[in-house]
Formats: sequence, structure tokens, C-alpha cells
Amino acid sequence: MSDGAATVTVRIDVMLKDEILDPQGQAVERALPQLGFEGVERVRVGKHIELRVAGGDDLAARVESMAAKLLANPVIETFVWTVERTVEPEGA
Amino acid sequence: MSDGAATVTVRIDVMLKDEILDPQGQAVERALPQLGFEGVERVRVGKHIELRVAGGDDLAARVESMAAKLLANPVIETFVWTVERTVEPEGA
Repeated sequence: MSDGAATVTVRIDVMLKDEILDPQGQAVERALPQLGFEGVERVRVGKHIELRVAGGDDLAARVESMAAKLLANPVIETFVWTVERTVEPEGA
Repeated sequence: MSDGAATVTVRIDVMLKDEILDPQGQAVERALPQLGFEGVERVRVGKHIELRVAGGDDLAARVESMAAKLLANPVIETFVWTVERTVEPEGA
């Protein structure tokens, strides 16, 4: 489809802000040397959300509103998202 | 550094296998229409882990062993990982 509204895959990573303590990340960081993995630093654990949604011009607004309202807590978390659009060239 | 052992950023996404029920994803999918977001499908919620570790030839083996032993449950989860290596050209 050329109207931009074909379904796309969106991936959203929600992480605690850098200045917020991340106990889960600390637990992983402390466990790794005991398993023989040395020198792993700055471990942070967050959420990864994948979904399928109609593309279109307002995709960014929809995704960011969705993330801010339901998926992330804007007080303590930030999020980064990517979109994957599969294109089948019409001439193919 | 050209020995490949400079520190790199690794990001690991751990997701439930497709055939495993994902209650958290279902909860998000059901909540979205009530917030005005229609047509969102196949919502899956997993973990996103970021860490810093020494690069090097055995990076893939180390990351995948780490993920399989500590971060993911191989019975019900799969993981995908990426590495980000920052290069400063020597001639710059």
C-alpha cells in the first residue's frame, strides 16, 4: 500500500531513567561474576514491547502517546522506539 | 583500539516464545482501545537488558551464554541481541 497505513511492527524499550536506582540491573550485575562473566558493567533492565499497528502520518504521535499513557511511567522511565515497515515494491 | 576488546554496549531483548501465552501483552492489548488506541495487535511484553562489556572475538559466545544462563529461560523464552561499537578512526 502506498497510503502509508499498512500495518507496521513497533518495538518500544522502556527503561528506568539513568538517575533512578535499578535493583534488577544491580542483581544481574552482581550475579554475573559468580557465573564466570567478569567485567560486565552498567547493567540496566527494562521492558521491551512489540506490537503491530496501522502505519500512517500520525504513527509517531500515536506510539508516543500510547507509551506515555500506558507503557511507561514518565516520572521514572524513558522510552525509545523503532518502527519496521515491510515494503513490497509494486514493480516486483 | 584495534584489538577488538574495547568496551561495547550490548542490548538483549528477551521475549516469551510465540506459542507461550503472554498475559502482560494481552492486558496491554485490551487496555489500549479503552484509551482510544484502536487496531493495535499482537502485543508482546518482554525484558530489555542493556550492559557494557569488553568486546573481542568471543563476544557472541559470552553474550549468548550469559543470556541463556541468567537472563532468559530457554524453555519458554527466546532472545535477540545487538551490539553497538563506537569507533574513533585513528586518522581523525
